[in-house]
Amino acid sequence: MQGNPGETGPLDDVVAWRDEHIVAIDQTVLPHEFRVLHITTVDELVDAIIRLAIRGAPALGVAGALGVALAVRQAQREGWDASRLQTEVERIAAARPTAVNLRREVQATAAMIGRGPAAVEAAAAAVRDTAISVSRRMSERGARYLSDAAGTGPLTIHTHCNTGTLACLGWGSALGVIRALHEQGELRQVIVDETRPLLQGARLTCWELGQLGIEHYLICDGAGPFLISQGLADAVVVGADRVAANGDVANKIGTYALALAARQAGIPFVVAVPESTIDSATESGKQIPLERRPEDEVTHVLGVPAAPAGTRALNYAFDITPAELVTAIVTEDRLILPGRAADAALAR
Amino acid sequence: MQGNPGETGPLDDVVAWRDEHIVAIDQTVLPHEFRVLHITTVDELVDAIIRLAIRGAPALGVAGALGVALAVRQAQREGWDASRLQTEVERIAAARPTAVNLRREVQATAAMIGRGPAAVEAAAAAVRDTAISVSRRMSERGARYLSDAAGTGPLTIHTHCNTGTLACLGWGSALGVIRALHEQGELRQVIVDETRPLLQGARLTCWELGQLGIEHYLICDGAGPFLISQGLADAVVVGADRVAANGDVANKIGTYALALAARQAGIPFVVAVPESTIDSATESGKQIPLERRPEDEVTHVLGVPAAPAGTRALNYAFDITPAELVTAIVTEDRLILPGRAADAALAR
Repeated sequence: MQGNPGETGPLDDVVAWRDEHIVAIDQTVLPHEFRVLHITTVDELVDAIIRLAIRGAPALGVAGALGVALAVRQAQREGWDASRLQTEVERIAAARPTAVNLRREVQATAAMIGRGPAAVEAAAAAVRDTAISVSRRMSERGARYLSDAAGTGPLTIHTHCNTGTLACLGWGSALGVIRALHEQGELRQVIVDETRPLLQGARLTCWELGQLGIEHYLICDGAGPFLISQGLADAVVVGADRVAANGDVANKIGTYALALAARQAGIPFVVAVPESTIDSATESGKQIPLERRPEDEVTHVLGVPAAPAGTRALNYAFDITPAELVTAIVTEDRLILPGRAADAALAR
Repeated sequence: MQGNPGETGPLDDVVAWRDEHIVAIDQTVLPHEFRVLHITTVDELVDAIIRLAIRGAPALGVAGALGVALAVRQAQREGWDASRLQTEVERIAAARPTAVNLRREVQATAAMIGRGPAAVEAAAAAVRDTAISVSRRMSERGARYLSDAAGTGPLTIHTHCNTGTLACLGWGSALGVIRALHEQGELRQVIVDETRPLLQGARLTCWELGQLGIEHYLICDGAGPFLISQGLADAVVVGADRVAANGDVANKIGTYALALAARQAGIPFVVAVPESTIDSATESGKQIPLERRPEDEVTHVLGVPAAPAGTRALNYAFDITPAELVTAIVTEDRLILPGRAADAALAR
């Protein structure tokens, strides 16, 4: 990676609009291969989202917005009526259930359909531009908070899954906070959970941190809580797929265990999200739908069978961390401390 | 597997003495291949232990005892003097540092060397026989305790790593408790952590449970604490590699997170170990050496690279669960409740 990911260079293509179609980096083949997908139909987009070629709550929001523009182009080419277009747009919104950003940005952009393709494309481009600028502000706010809250000296930050440019555009969410600490000279190192089943930590976060020249160590997910108990990390920083109105956080499976360990160890557990990930219409974590994905993601690793043939598995892609375990939620606009009564309701 | 594993049938060969050498099932190639190793030298035995072809604290104790008999035979063949024999025996004891059973049984058996090969072999055979009978008594005691402590109706038990016949001979430790519950008709299902990095849960525990016809579901390690928080399991039952005098428990990395989640959810966290795993010479968990294994066990999965080339990793094979998180320790002789003052010191 040259330059600033998400601003110039190859990570501009995480998800973007080019020549009346969507380009997206295929995140399923990283870090061993860098492949850019050219997506020209709703079918291709839904497939890319379901198989996680495009992933991360903010990036899914951008993909959803660009997806509406794509559907409008496809409707023109193929002569869809309004009802068919609506059905196809809904398929994009429903491709993954947990991240609120996808449906939210699809709906916001679809509201422009009556004004014609140019207006839709402009709205989608604005969603993408906003994601990038939001990421930067959230990152800097998070770094300021951690400088104050997580002790003196360069910090060791424990993180989960992938929350960088690949997930969010711009600098990322949690990884953006880490990058901002690094730029301020306040980062010592990063502890990266591998994040089974799909290993986004090992495959994507290690790759992004390597490109940025940030010192990092990969661990297995089961090791995280213990290493936190031993004082290795100064703070845990993660992103989220949805934050409920009461501050409960849905994020990649494995997050809850880190939050529990952080509280036990007395270190901050910080969630970095854009405001668009906070869903005031969802009262608490109990109302957040948790995607269950195919069992073979668990019984196999990188496509290789681990368990005996026929083994059953439970594959919840996300978990819920209750607000009581969350030290701070950092957005582009706010620092929310769920433990503080005045901040307990996140609606603005 | 036909018959009763560890009693008749192929699991008799987990680790055994045959025709003046050691036979052992190569646990690194299960479940896809069933291969029996014929080990005739100390070098081969140390290699088998280091690469985890033979593993599990009680099985390592048996391997250590048989290893002394093997060293005595090799000394005869190769004309070693007493000093060389002592050096080779020490290499076996030191092959892995965390499980106390290995060194303990090596030392106990080596004390017989002066009485000649037959006495050493008889002592080693007794260590093996004891492991099998101990396993059965521990299993039944654990099942009785859980019947009382973990609620009514068939139980869902969450477990970690592999603690069955492959790890312990006989019925196993934690998996022996699960098997005893199953035989009493009190088991509903088992939740099995895959247990990265080496996937002993996915590879070995799912295989053993499948052979026994016990319903089970595989999960990724990061999912365990969350599923516990959602009420899926009635109890967590694990084995251990060493229990310190104060009740702190060293076990496969990932155990601490389950203990924390079990306490938060208000379900029992039970450790099933033979008395030989309790080390009264180790005051607390702080004194237990935690083996660090090669980084490529983390950066690769089943031999396939996950992270970018050159990624650094931290690979602690074990973690420490403090006694305050342990509801009960079950051995062949005792039920110890570390939270109860009278039981806090485990020395007998």
